[in-house]
Amino acid sequence: MNQSSSTQTTSAVGASTRAVLLETARGAFARNGFDGASVRMITSDAGVNLGAITYHFGSKRGLYDAVLEEGLRPLLRRVREAAERSGTSLDRMVAVVEAYFEHLATHPDLPHLMLQEVAAGREPPKVVLEIIREVKGTIAGLQQSGVADGSVREGHPVLMALSVASQPIYLTLITPMLRSVAGLDLTEPATRQMVIEHVSDFVRRGLAPRIEATA
Amino acid sequence: MNQSSSTQTTSAVGASTRAVLLETARGAFARNGFDGASVRMITSDAGVNLGAITYHFGSKRGLYDAVLEEGLRPLLRRVREAAERSGTSLDRMVAVVEAYFEHLATHPDLPHLMLQEVAAGREPPKVVLEIIREVKGTIAGLQQSGVADGSVREGHPVLMALSVASQPIYLTLITPMLRSVAGLDLTEPATRQMVIEHVSDFVRRGLAPRIEATA
Repeated sequence: MNQSSSTQTTSAVGASTRAVLLETARGAFARNGFDGASVRMITSDAGVNLGAITYHFGSKRGLYDAVLEEGLRPLLRRVREAAERSGTSLDRMVAVVEAYFEHLATHPDLPHLMLQEVAAGREPPKVVLEIIREVKGTIAGLQQSGVADGSVREGHPVLMALSVASQPIYLTLITPMLRSVAGLDLTEPATRQMVIEHVSDFVRRGLAPRIEATA
Repeated sequence: MNQSSSTQTTSAVGASTRAVLLETARGAFARNGFDGASVRMITSDAGVNLGAITYHFGSKRGLYDAVLEEGLRPLLRRVREAAERSGTSLDRMVAVVEAYFEHLATHPDLPHLMLQEVAAGREPPKVVLEIIREVKGTIAGLQQSGVADGSVREGHPVLMALSVASQPIYLTLITPMLRSVAGLDLTEPATRQMVIEHVSDFVRRGLAPRIEATA
Protein backbone atom coordinates (compact mmCIF):
# COMPACT_ATOMS: atom_id res chain seq x y z
CA MET A 1 0.00 0.00 0.00
CA ASN A 2 2.89 2.40 0.66
CA GLN A 3 4.39 3.89 -2.44
CA SER A 4 6.58 6.96 -2.73
CA SER A 5 4.68 10.07 -1.78
CA SER A 6 5.08 11.70 -5.22
CA THR A 7 3.58 8.67 -7.03
CA GLN A 8 0.76 8.59 -4.55
CA THR A 9 -0.07 12.25 -5.13
CA THR A 10 0.03 11.93 -8.92
CA SER A 11 -2.20 8.87 -9.02
CA ALA A 12 -4.60 10.40 -6.48
CA VAL A 13 -5.00 13.49 -8.65
CA GLY A 14 -5.42 11.30 -11.77
CA ALA A 15 -7.96 9.10 -10.02
CA SER A 16 -9.88 12.04 -8.69
CA THR A 17 -10.01 13.86 -12.07
CA ARG A 18 -11.31 10.64 -13.60
CA ALA A 19 -13.88 10.18 -10.83
CA VAL A 20 -15.05 13.80 -10.96
CA LEU A 21 -15.40 13.58 -14.74
CA LEU A 22 -17.44 10.37 -14.50
CA GLU A 23 -19.73 11.85 -11.88
CA THR A 24 -20.20 15.16 -13.73
CA ALA A 25 -20.68 13.44 -17.08
CA ARG A 26 -23.26 11.06 -15.64
CA GLY A 27 -25.45 14.00 -14.62
CA ALA A 28 -24.85 15.94 -17.84
CA PHE A 29 -25.59 12.98 -20.13
CA ALA A 30 -28.70 12.08 -18.14
CA ARG A 31 -30.07 15.63 -18.34
CA ASN A 32 -29.00 16.58 -21.85
CA GLY A 33 -28.35 13.36 -23.74
CA PHE A 34 -25.10 12.42 -25.45
CA ASP A 35 -25.33 15.10 -28.14
CA GLY A 36 -26.65 17.78 -25.78
CA ALA A 37 -23.82 17.49 -23.25
CA SER A 38 -20.70 19.16 -24.67
CA VAL A 39 -17.09 18.44 -23.74
CA ARG A 40 -16.75 22.12 -22.81
CA MET A 41 -19.78 21.96 -20.49
CA ILE A 42 -18.65 18.75 -18.76
CA THR A 43 -15.02 19.80 -18.21
CA SER A 44 -16.09 23.25 -17.03
CA ASP A 45 -18.62 21.81 -14.55
CA ALA A 46 -16.05 19.29 -13.37
CA GLY A 47 -13.48 22.05 -12.91
CA VAL A 48 -10.86 20.26 -15.02
CA ASN A 49 -9.06 21.33 -18.15
CA LEU A 50 -10.62 20.92 -21.59
CA GLY A 51 -8.24 18.14 -22.60
CA ALA A 52 -9.00 15.92 -19.59
CA ILE A 53 -11.71 13.88 -21.34
CA THR A 54 -9.40 13.01 -24.22
CA TYR A 55 -6.59 12.24 -21.77
CA HIS A 56 -8.61 9.94 -19.51
CA PHE A 57 -11.23 8.46 -21.87
CA GLY A 58 -10.00 9.04 -25.43
CA SER A 59 -13.19 10.84 -26.51
CA LYS A 60 -16.65 11.95 -25.40
CA ARG A 61 -17.95 8.59 -26.61
CA GLY A 62 -15.30 6.87 -24.50
CA LEU A 63 -16.47 8.88 -21.49
CA TYR A 64 -20.11 7.89 -22.07
CA ASP A 65 -19.10 4.24 -22.33
CA ALA A 66 -17.09 4.55 -19.10
CA VAL A 67 -20.11 6.09 -17.33
CA LEU A 68 -22.23 3.09 -18.38
CA GLU A 69 -19.54 0.59 -17.41
CA GLU A 70 -19.00 2.27 -14.04
CA GLY A 71 -22.76 2.08 -13.40
CA LEU A 72 -23.20 -1.52 -14.51
CA ARG A 73 -20.15 -3.27 -13.07
CA PRO A 74 -21.25 -2.99 -9.40
CA LEU A 75 -24.72 -4.25 -10.45
CA LEU A 76 -23.11 -7.41 -11.78
CA ARG A 77 -21.25 -7.77 -8.46
CA ARG A 78 -24.48 -7.38 -6.48
CA VAL A 79 -26.37 -9.84 -8.69
CA ARG A 80 -23.58 -12.40 -8.29
CA GLU A 81 -23.65 -11.94 -4.51
CA ALA A 82 -27.44 -12.46 -4.51
CA ALA A 83 -26.94 -15.61 -6.58
CA GLU A 84 -24.63 -17.03 -3.93
CA ARG A 85 -26.86 -16.49 -0.90
CA SER A 86 -28.34 -19.30 1.09
CA GLY A 87 -31.84 -20.60 0.41
CA THR A 88 -33.48 -22.15 -2.62
CA SER A 89 -32.76 -20.96 -6.14
CA LEU A 90 -36.14 -19.19 -5.97
CA ASP A 91 -35.00 -17.31 -2.84
CA ARG A 92 -31.84 -16.28 -4.65
CA MET A 93 -33.76 -15.09 -7.73
CA VAL A 94 -35.92 -12.95 -5.43
CA ALA A 95 -32.70 -11.66 -3.82
CA VAL A 96 -31.71 -10.47 -7.31
CA VAL A 97 -34.81 -8.21 -7.34
CA GLU A 98 -33.55 -6.62 -4.10
CA ALA A 99 -30.04 -6.35 -5.56
CA TYR A 100 -31.43 -4.36 -8.49
CA PHE A 101 -33.39 -2.03 -6.22
CA GLU A 102 -30.37 -1.49 -3.97
CA HIS A 103 -28.10 -0.75 -6.89
CA LEU A 104 -30.57 1.57 -8.60
CA ALA A 105 -31.13 3.53 -5.38
CA THR A 106 -27.52 4.71 -5.69
CA HIS A 107 -27.50 4.79 -9.53
CA PRO A 108 -30.96 6.17 -10.43
CA ASP A 109 -29.76 7.61 -13.76
CA LEU A 110 -28.42 4.30 -15.05
CA PRO A 111 -31.55 2.92 -16.77
CA HIS A 112 -32.16 6.22 -18.51
CA LEU A 113 -28.51 6.46 -19.62
CA MET A 114 -28.73 2.95 -21.09
CA LEU A 115 -32.08 3.49 -22.77
CA GLN A 116 -31.37 6.85 -24.34
CA GLU A 117 -28.54 5.18 -26.23
CA VAL A 118 -30.80 2.32 -27.28
CA ALA A 119 -33.50 4.80 -28.39
CA ALA A 120 -30.93 6.75 -30.41
CA GLY A 121 -30.23 3.54 -32.31
CA ARG A 122 -26.73 3.14 -30.89
CA GLU A 123 -25.48 -0.23 -29.81
CA PRO A 124 -23.99 -0.07 -26.30
CA PRO A 125 -20.22 -0.72 -26.26
CA LYS A 126 -18.89 -4.27 -26.13
CA VAL A 127 -17.88 -4.10 -22.47
CA VAL A 128 -21.40 -3.01 -21.51
CA LEU A 129 -23.05 -5.73 -23.60
CA GLU A 130 -20.70 -8.22 -21.97
CA ILE A 131 -21.76 -7.13 -18.45
CA ILE A 132 -25.45 -7.27 -19.40
CA ARG A 133 -24.96 -10.78 -20.81
CA GLU A 134 -23.29 -11.84 -17.56
CA VAL A 135 -26.10 -10.39 -15.43
CA LYS A 136 -28.73 -12.15 -17.56
CA GLY A 137 -26.63 -15.32 -17.58
CA THR A 138 -26.38 -15.31 -13.78
CA ILE A 139 -30.16 -14.97 -13.43
CA ALA A 140 -30.77 -17.60 -16.12
CA GLY A 141 -28.36 -19.94 -14.30
CA LEU A 142 -30.37 -19.53 -11.10
CA GLN A 143 -33.53 -20.37 -13.00
CA GLN A 144 -32.00 -23.54 -14.40
CA SER A 145 -30.77 -24.67 -10.99
CA GLY A 146 -34.23 -23.78 -9.65
CA VAL A 147 -35.88 -26.05 -12.18
CA ALA A 148 -33.48 -28.78 -11.05
CA ASP A 149 -34.13 -28.26 -7.31
CA GLY A 150 -37.88 -27.82 -7.89
CA SER A 151 -38.12 -24.26 -6.54
CA VAL A 152 -38.55 -22.49 -9.90
CA ARG A 153 -40.82 -23.35 -12.81
CA GLU A 154 -39.65 -23.99 -16.34
CA GLY A 155 -39.66 -21.14 -18.82
CA HIS A 156 -37.60 -19.26 -21.38
CA PRO A 157 -34.40 -18.35 -19.45
CA VAL A 158 -33.99 -14.90 -21.03
CA LEU A 159 -37.64 -13.99 -20.53
CA MET A 160 -37.53 -15.21 -16.94
CA ALA A 161 -34.45 -13.03 -16.33
CA LEU A 162 -36.23 -10.05 -17.90
CA SER A 163 -39.28 -10.63 -15.71
CA VAL A 164 -36.98 -10.41 -12.66
CA ALA A 165 -35.29 -7.19 -13.81
CA SER A 166 -38.20 -5.32 -15.49
CA GLN A 167 -39.95 -3.89 -12.46
CA PRO A 168 -36.93 -2.51 -10.56
CA ILE A 169 -35.72 -0.84 -13.77
CA TYR A 170 -39.10 0.47 -14.90
CA LEU A 171 -40.04 1.82 -11.48
CA THR A 172 -36.70 3.63 -11.30
CA LEU A 173 -37.35 5.18 -14.71
CA ILE A 174 -40.76 6.52 -13.69
CA THR A 175 -39.78 7.63 -10.16
CA PRO A 176 -40.68 11.32 -10.72
CA MET A 177 -44.03 10.40 -12.31
CA LEU A 178 -44.81 7.89 -9.58
CA ARG A 179 -44.50 10.75 -7.13
CA SER A 180 -46.71 13.19 -9.05
CA VAL A 181 -49.33 10.76 -10.38
CA ALA A 182 -49.59 8.24 -7.55
CA GLY A 183 -48.06 9.99 -4.55
CA LEU A 184 -45.50 7.20 -4.17
CA ASP A 185 -42.01 8.54 -3.41
CA LEU A 186 -39.43 5.83 -4.10
CA THR A 187 -36.70 7.92 -2.50
CA GLU A 188 -38.59 7.74 0.81
CA PRO A 189 -37.27 4.67 2.72
CA ALA A 190 -40.60 3.28 3.98
CA THR A 191 -42.24 3.62 0.54
CA ARG A 192 -39.20 2.10 -1.11
CA GLN A 193 -39.33 -0.86 1.27
CA MET A 194 -43.03 -1.39 0.54
CA VAL A 195 -42.34 -1.31 -3.20
CA ILE A 196 -39.43 -3.77 -2.89
CA GLU A 197 -41.63 -6.13 -0.91
CA HIS A 198 -44.45 -5.86 -3.45
CA VAL A 199 -42.17 -6.54 -6.42
CA SER A 200 -40.29 -9.34 -4.62
CA ASP A 201 -43.59 -11.03 -3.77
CA PHE A 202 -44.92 -10.57 -7.31
CA VAL A 203 -41.76 -12.03 -8.85
CA ARG A 204 -41.68 -14.92 -6.36
CA ARG A 205 -45.20 -15.90 -7.41
CA GLY A 206 -44.35 -15.46 -11.08
CA LEU A 207 -41.38 -17.81 -10.81
CA ALA A 208 -42.72 -20.46 -8.43
CA PRO A 209 -43.70 -23.82 -9.90
CA ARG A 210 -47.37 -24.39 -10.62
CA ILE A 211 -49.11 -25.90 -7.64
CA GLU A 212 -51.04 -28.81 -9.03
CA ALA A 213 -54.44 -29.42 -7.54
CA THR A 214 -54.46 -32.80 -5.87
CA ALA A 215 -57.55 -34.99 -5.90
CA MET B 1 -70.78 12.27 -44.72
CA ASN B 2 -71.44 14.45 -47.78
CA GLN B 3 -70.52 18.07 -47.32
CA SER B 4 -69.84 20.65 -49.98
CA SER B 5 -66.77 19.72 -51.92
CA SER B 6 -64.89 22.90 -50.97
CA THR B 7 -65.47 22.34 -47.22
CA GLN B 8 -64.40 18.74 -47.58
CA THR B 9 -61.18 19.71 -49.30
CA THR B 10 -60.32 22.39 -46.75
CA SER B 11 -60.95 20.17 -43.72
CA ALA B 12 -59.20 17.22 -45.35
CA VAL B 13 -56.12 19.36 -45.91
CA GLY B 14 -56.29 20.68 -42.33
CA ALA B 15 -56.72 17.18 -40.92
CA SER B 16 -53.96 15.77 -43.05
CA THR B 17 -51.49 18.57 -42.18
CA ARG B 18 -52.20 17.92 -38.50
CA ALA B 19 -51.80 14.16 -38.96
CA VAL B 20 -48.60 14.50 -40.99
CA LEU B 21 -47.17 16.87 -38.39
CA LEU B 22 -48.00 14.48 -35.55
CA GLU B 23 -46.44 11.55 -37.37
CA THR B 24 -43.30 13.46 -38.39
CA ALA B 25 -42.90 15.03 -34.95
CA ARG B 26 -43.27 11.66 -33.22
CA GLY B 27 -40.25 10.32 -35.13
CA ALA B 28 -38.23 13.52 -34.72
CA PHE B 29 -38.86 13.81 -30.97
CA ALA B 30 -38.09 10.13 -30.44
CA ARG B 31 -34.78 10.36 -32.32
CA ASN B 32 -33.62 13.81 -31.21
CA GLY B 33 -35.49 14.66 -28.02
CA PHE B 34 -37.64 17.72 -27.50
CA ASP B 35 -34.76 20.20 -27.65
CA GLY B 36 -32.97 18.42 -30.49
CA ALA B 37 -35.94 18.41 -32.86
CA SER B 38 -36.41 21.90 -34.30
CA VAL B 39 -39.60 23.44 -35.68
CA ARG B 40 -37.75 24.02 -38.93
CA MET B 41 -36.69 20.37 -39.17
CA ILE B 42 -40.16 19.01 -38.39
CA THR B 43 -42.06 21.29 -40.77
CA SER B 44 -39.53 20.72 -43.52
CA ASP B 45 -39.67 16.93 -43.12
CA ALA B 46 -43.47 17.06 -43.01
CA GLY B 47 -43.53 19.20 -46.17
CA VAL B 48 -45.68 21.88 -44.56
CA ASN B 49 -45.04 25.57 -44.03
CA LEU B 50 -43.04 26.85 -41.07
CA GLY B 51 -46.10 28.35 -39.36
CA ALA B 52 -48.12 25.11 -39.38
CA ILE B 53 -47.03 24.01 -35.88
CA THR B 54 -48.12 27.30 -34.34
CA TYR B 55 -51.35 27.21 -36.33
CA HIS B 56 -52.33 23.65 -35.36
CA PHE B 57 -50.70 23.19 -31.94
CA GLY B 58 -49.87 26.66 -30.61
CA SER B 59 -46.18 25.83 -30.03
CA LYS B 60 -43.57 23.10 -30.23
CA ARG B 61 -44.48 22.13 -26.67
CA GLY B 62 -48.13 21.92 -27.73
CA LEU B 63 -47.11 19.60 -30.57
CA TYR B 64 -45.13 17.35 -28.19
CA ASP B 65 -48.11 17.16 -25.84
CA ALA B 66 -50.40 16.32 -28.78
CA VAL B 67 -48.01 13.52 -29.84
CA LEU B 68 -48.20 12.04 -26.33
CA GLU B 69 -51.97 12.43 -26.14
CA GLU B 70 -52.43 10.87 -29.58
CA GLY B 71 -50.28 7.90 -28.48
CA LEU B 72 -51.96 7.40 -25.11
CA ARG B 73 -55.65 7.91 -25.87
CA PRO B 74 -56.05 4.68 -27.90
CA LEU B 75 -54.19 2.81 -25.12
CA LEU B 76 -56.87 3.92 -22.66
CA ARG B 77 -59.52 2.70 -25.12
CA ARG B 78 -57.83 -0.70 -25.44
CA VAL B 79 -57.39 -1.06 -21.67
CA ARG B 80 -61.07 -0.23 -21.13
CA GLU B 81 -62.07 -2.80 -23.75
CA ALA B 82 -59.91 -5.43 -22.01
CA ALA B 83 -61.55 -4.51 -18.70
CA GLU B 84 -64.98 -5.27 -20.16
CA ARG B 85 -64.22 -8.69 -21.58
CA SER B 86 -65.81 -11.86 -20.30
CA GLY B 87 -64.09 -14.02 -17.69
CA THR B 88 -62.93 -13.37 -14.15
CA SER B 89 -61.34 -10.10 -13.09
CA LEU B 90 -58.03 -11.94 -13.22
CA ASP B 91 -58.66 -12.88 -16.87
CA ARG B 92 -59.43 -9.25 -17.62
CA MET B 93 -56.27 -8.03 -15.89
CA VAL B 94 -54.27 -10.46 -18.02
CA ALA B 95 -56.14 -9.14 -21.08
CA VAL B 96 -54.75 -5.70 -20.14
CA VAL B 97 -51.22 -7.08 -20.59
CA GLU B 98 -52.16 -8.09 -24.14
CA ALA B 99 -53.80 -4.70 -24.71
CA TYR B 100 -50.52 -3.00 -23.80
CA PHE B 101 -48.51 -5.23 -26.12
CA GLU B 102 -50.99 -4.69 -28.98
CA HIS B 103 -50.94 -0.95 -28.54
CA LEU B 104 -47.16 -0.72 -28.23
CA ALA B 105 -46.68 -2.82 -31.37
CA THR B 106 -48.18 0.10 -33.31
CA HIS B 107 -46.75 2.84 -31.04
CA PRO B 108 -43.24 1.58 -30.21
CA ASP B 109 -41.89 5.11 -29.60
CA LEU B 110 -44.49 5.98 -26.97
CA PRO B 111 -42.68 4.76 -23.81
CA HIS B 112 -39.49 6.49 -24.85
CA LEU B 113 -41.36 9.74 -25.66
CA MET B 114 -42.97 9.66 -22.21
CA LEU B 115 -39.80 8.79 -20.35
CA GLN B 116 -37.51 11.28 -22.01
CA GLU B 117 -39.80 14.00 -20.69
CA VAL B 118 -39.77 12.47 -17.23
CA ALA B 119 -35.97 12.17 -17.32
CA ALA B 120 -35.67 15.80 -18.39
CA GLY B 121 -37.54 16.70 -15.21
CA ARG B 122 -40.64 17.90 -17.07
CA GLU B 123 -44.07 17.03 -15.81
CA PRO B 124 -46.21 15.57 -18.61
CA PRO B 125 -49.16 17.85 -19.54
CA LYS B 126 -52.42 17.63 -17.60
CA VAL B 127 -54.30 15.79 -20.33
CA VAL B 128 -51.59 13.09 -20.41
CA LEU B 129 -51.52 12.73 -16.62
CA GLU B 130 -55.31 12.44 -16.73
CA ILE B 131 -55.16 9.58 -19.27
CA ILE B 132 -52.46 7.80 -17.24
CA ARG B 133 -54.58 8.13 -14.09
CA GLU B 134 -57.55 6.66 -15.94
CA VAL B 135 -55.51 3.72 -17.25
CA LYS B 136 -54.15 2.99 -13.77
CA GLY B 137 -57.62 3.52 -12.29
CA THR B 138 -59.14 1.01 -14.71
CA ILE B 139 -56.53 -1.62 -13.78
CA ALA B 140 -56.88 -0.85 -10.06
CA GLY B 141 -60.67 -1.21 -10.41
CA LEU B 142 -60.21 -4.65 -11.92
CA GLN B 143 -57.98 -5.61 -9.03
CA GLN B 144 -60.58 -4.51 -6.49
CA SER B 145 -63.37 -6.41 -8.24
CA GLY B 146 -60.97 -9.37 -8.44
CA VAL B 147 -60.43 -9.29 -4.70
CA ALA B 148 -64.22 -9.27 -4.33
CA ASP B 149 -64.80 -12.19 -6.74
CA GLY B 150 -61.82 -14.12 -5.34
CA SER B 151 -59.81 -14.24 -8.58
CA VAL B 152 -57.16 -11.67 -7.62
CA ARG B 153 -55.17 -11.35 -4.40
CA GLU B 154 -55.09 -8.27 -2.22
CA GLY B 155 -52.30 -5.75 -2.70
CA HIS B 156 -51.53 -2.08 -3.21
CA PRO B 157 -53.76 -1.08 -6.18
CA VAL B 158 -51.20 1.25 -7.79
CA LEU B 159 -48.36 -1.25 -7.41
CA MET B 160 -50.53 -4.04 -8.79
CA ALA B 161 -51.37 -1.84 -11.82
CA LEU B 162 -47.66 -1.10 -12.30
CA SER B 163 -46.81 -4.78 -12.15
CA VAL B 164 -49.29 -5.35 -14.98
CA ALA B 165 -47.89 -2.56 -17.16
CA SER B 166 -44.14 -2.77 -16.41
CA GLN B 167 -43.13 -5.66 -18.62
CA PRO B 168 -44.90 -4.62 -21.85
CA ILE B 169 -43.47 -1.12 -21.50
CA TYR B 170 -39.96 -2.18 -20.51
CA LEU B 171 -39.67 -4.83 -23.21
CA THR B 172 -40.79 -2.27 -25.80
CA LEU B 173 -38.08 0.12 -24.57
CA ILE B 174 -35.32 -2.45 -24.91
CA THR B 175 -36.52 -3.99 -28.21
CA PRO B 176 -33.30 -3.17 -30.12
CA MET B 177 -31.11 -4.51 -27.29
CA LEU B 178 -33.23 -7.62 -26.93
CA ARG B 179 -32.44 -8.35 -30.55
CA SER B 180 -28.69 -7.76 -30.30
CA VAL B 181 -28.05 -9.21 -26.82
CA ALA B 182 -30.53 -12.09 -26.69
CA GLY B 183 -31.49 -12.72 -30.30
CA LEU B 184 -35.17 -12.08 -29.51
CA ASP B 185 -36.87 -9.96 -32.17
CA LEU B 186 -40.11 -8.54 -30.78
CA THR B 187 -41.13 -7.30 -34.22
CA GLU B 188 -41.20 -10.91 -35.43
CA PRO B 189 -44.76 -12.23 -34.90
CA ALA B 190 -43.92 -15.69 -33.49
CA THR B 191 -41.37 -14.26 -31.03
CA ARG B 192 -43.79 -11.51 -30.05
CA GLN B 193 -46.51 -14.08 -29.39
CA MET B 194 -44.13 -16.13 -27.23
CA VAL B 195 -43.19 -13.03 -25.24
CA ILE B 196 -46.85 -12.02 -24.77
CA GLU B 197 -47.64 -15.52 -23.52
CA HIS B 198 -44.69 -15.50 -21.13
CA VAL B 199 -45.56 -12.10 -19.64
CA SER B 200 -49.30 -12.91 -19.45
CA ASP B 201 -48.52 -16.13 -17.61
CA PHE B 202 -46.07 -14.38 -15.27
CA VAL B 203 -48.57 -11.62 -14.45
CA ARG B 204 -51.41 -14.12 -13.96
CA ARG B 205 -49.32 -15.95 -11.37
CA GLY B 206 -48.28 -12.69 -9.73
CA LEU B 207 -51.90 -11.59 -9.33
CA ALA B 208 -53.58 -14.87 -8.43
CA PRO B 209 -54.59 -15.44 -4.80
CA ARG B 210 -52.27 -17.51 -2.67
CA ILE B 211 -53.20 -21.14 -2.81
CA GLU B 212 -53.33 -22.24 0.80
CA ALA B 213 -52.03 -25.69 1.53
CA THR B 214 -54.84 -27.84 2.88
CA ALA B 215 -54.20 -30.39 5.57
